[in-house]
Amino acid sequence: MSTPTPDEFAVERARLNELVLEKGTKTTKRFFNLDGAAYRDGELDARTKELLGLVASAVLRCDDCILYHLMQARDAGWSAAQLREALDVALVVGGSIVIPHLRRAYGQLERLYPADGAGA
Amino acid sequence: MSTPTPDEFAVERARLNELVLEKGTKTTKRFFNLDGAAYRDGELDARTKELLGLVASAVLRCDDCILYHLMQARDAGWSAAQLREALDVALVVGGSIVIPHLRRAYGQLERLYPADGAGA
Amino acid sequence: MSTPTPDEFAVERARLNELVLEKGTKTTKRFFNLDGAAYRDGELDARTKELLGLVASAVLRCDDCILYHLMQARDAGWSAAQLREALDVALVVGGSIVIPHLRRAYGQLERLYPADGAGA
Amino acid sequence: MSTPTPDEFAVERARLNELVLEKGTKTTKRFFNLDGAAYRDGELDARTKELLGLVASAVLRCDDCILYHLMQARDAGWSAAQLREALDVALVVGGSIVIPHLRRAYGQLERLYPADGAGA
Amino acid sequence: MSTPTPDEFAVERARLNELVLEKGTKTTKRFFNLDGAAYRDGELDARTKELLGLVASAVLRCDDCILYHLMQARDAGWSAAQLREALDVALVVGGSIVIPHLRRAYGQLERLYPADGAGA
Amino acid sequence: MSTPTPDEFAVERARLNELVLEKGTKTTKRFFNLDGAAYRDGELDARTKELLGLVASAVLRCDDCILYHLMQARDAGWSAAQLREALDVALVVGGSIVIPHLRRAYGQLERLYPADGAGA
Repeated sequence: MSTPTPDEFAVERARLNELVLEKGTKTTKRFFNLDGAAYRDGELDARTKELLGLVASAVLRCDDCILYHLMQARDAGWSAAQLREALDVALVVGGSIVIPHLRRAYGQLERLYPADGAGA
Repeated sequence: MSTPTPDEFAVERARLNELVLEKGTKTTKRFFNLDGAAYRDGELDARTKELLGLVASAVLRCDDCILYHLMQARDAGWSAAQLREALDVALVVGGSIVIPHLRRAYGQLERLYPADGAGA
Repeated sequence: MSTPTPDEFAVERARLNELVLEKGTKTTKRFFNLDGAAYRDGELDARTKELLGLVASAVLRCDDCILYHLMQARDAGWSAAQLREALDVALVVGGSIVIPHLRRAYGQLERLYPADGAGA
Repeated sequence: MSTPTPDEFAVERARLNELVLEKGTKTTKRFFNLDGAAYRDGELDARTKELLGLVASAVLRCDDCILYHLMQARDAGWSAAQLREALDVALVVGGSIVIPHLRRAYGQLERLYPADGAGA
Repeated sequence: MSTPTPDEFAVERARLNELVLEKGTKTTKRFFNLDGAAYRDGELDARTKELLGLVASAVLRCDDCILYHLMQARDAGWSAAQLREALDVALVVGGSIVIPHLRRAYGQLERLYPADGAGA
Repeated sequence: MSTPTPDEFAVERARLNELVLEKGTKTTKRFFNLDGAAYRDGELDARTKELLGLVASAVLRCDDCILYHLMQARDAGWSAAQLREALDVALVVGGSIVIPHLRRAYGQLERLYPADGAGA
């Protein structure tokens, strides 16, 4: 039941992404580029888009995607408390089936925000 | 293939919500209250949470939910162009299966933002 | 936004099922038979299985399936109030994205249980 | 409960796609281009890819997507009987929740293959 | 590919739930309370509601949720044979994509009902 | 984060399938038989149906199902490059939420096609 740490996840993700981009078709590569482009500054800032990606990942119940967006959102300056509120929207929209992912997300937030005190 | 206008949707939604709250159990009512609470100002502002609700609704492919959050997001001051960018995140996360809902959302944006010019 | 009445639905469903069973492969027919068999009395009674089918349909957000199982469950002797409680489980498990389907289900319950008073 | 005919669907789809491509962001347009590219001849032929798109649409339960791919698959030379077998895979993978979509797909096949006799 | 035993799962679940309830918002806590309330005796008995939760979890393909409800359902007095029939409904509604979860559920049933003989 | 090798998966799958078929109801057994039948030669050849099963599994995001169909598709004579193109359709239809499964599928393709060179 152990989940990967953010660092373990990042290493494995990079290794496999490299494989996908080496072996993948032009369509694959274009999708990966587009996936990056969708989160850049535009009419909405990149920072807000990371929250959108996090909530989309949570209601679709994808642990890898949730962890990735938690890391991106932290780097974009969101606090742990703000991310927990974003996850609340996912919980209410997606229902109790989201809870196992929420639990693991809270576990990852402890790792990503080591100085985050109780109730913060 | 006609979709309801925002006004038609709002009337029907209100009528059925009244029925749900009249006949529903205490659990039903508590869920509806909680659903409202999740979008209020907190660590994140209510305005941002509407965007989160919109993207969650779009990747889960619920037309009624998308229309509701488009209306809420407009009332919260987001521009049509900003909502289209939020929908881009949903499109990339959720894939081409989202496109029929995206099409209908664009149709509703025309109704919700009548003064919105081409490319705005 | 009008939803079919239970009678309209039953007629259209029968018409198309006939087409499926006329044109479908042996695999199609076997699936339809198996679908019937899964709801028969066994270690669990058929009556309970209708509730299971209803909740499965609701969390998977299929209006036709929900209406079908509401009709079957009524014929199996469940009260409207009992079906609303079953739908509560679906609401909590599946989240607010289930609400549009819940609203329509409540509308159908009014039609299926015309003598069902307020709060019943 | 009436479903659009293939022609009505094609007209409405074209009208809204035009709106999406007029108002959409560069990301939106890139996604639409990529969506087209994924179905072109490559290591697999375009004809096979249409079947893949059909089955993906059916298990994800998107009527518009199913109808679109039925039309594309017919134009690519698949028979109604072949498309019904492809839908069988979707039925078995996706379960009885796919049945309402299967029913509507069979209705559309009658329109798309008017000369298709019983059991063909 | 090893799955946690019911005891390992219960320990990890309790540890993370504690974290969620310590750090979560008021919305989070209210959702968790409501999740508990939805399964209490009412018009339907708690025992039946556990079956509903199990089937909802299985069609939504959440291993943690399935295991949790298997444990609850056993404690509520359902036999392994009855739970296997409930899972049949999930299998037929949800399709072959449910099978990997069904397999793991059968593995957990062996652990939860050690005295359950062949064919029981 | 380690994923099972194809051999480890096959052993565990066989072990649990045996348990399901020993303990399962007649409905369970009939479903398993039907699942096999849906992939046999008919109007479409078995080889094409494996591709359909792969894409259905990928958009529904089931790693076990993806690996199973990758193995079946390899045995049916598809090349790694062809399977990557089939996965492209799943990626575009299902969106970036499919990417973690795509990554793991690429990892499995390395194992299943050890002689498959870069860009093949």
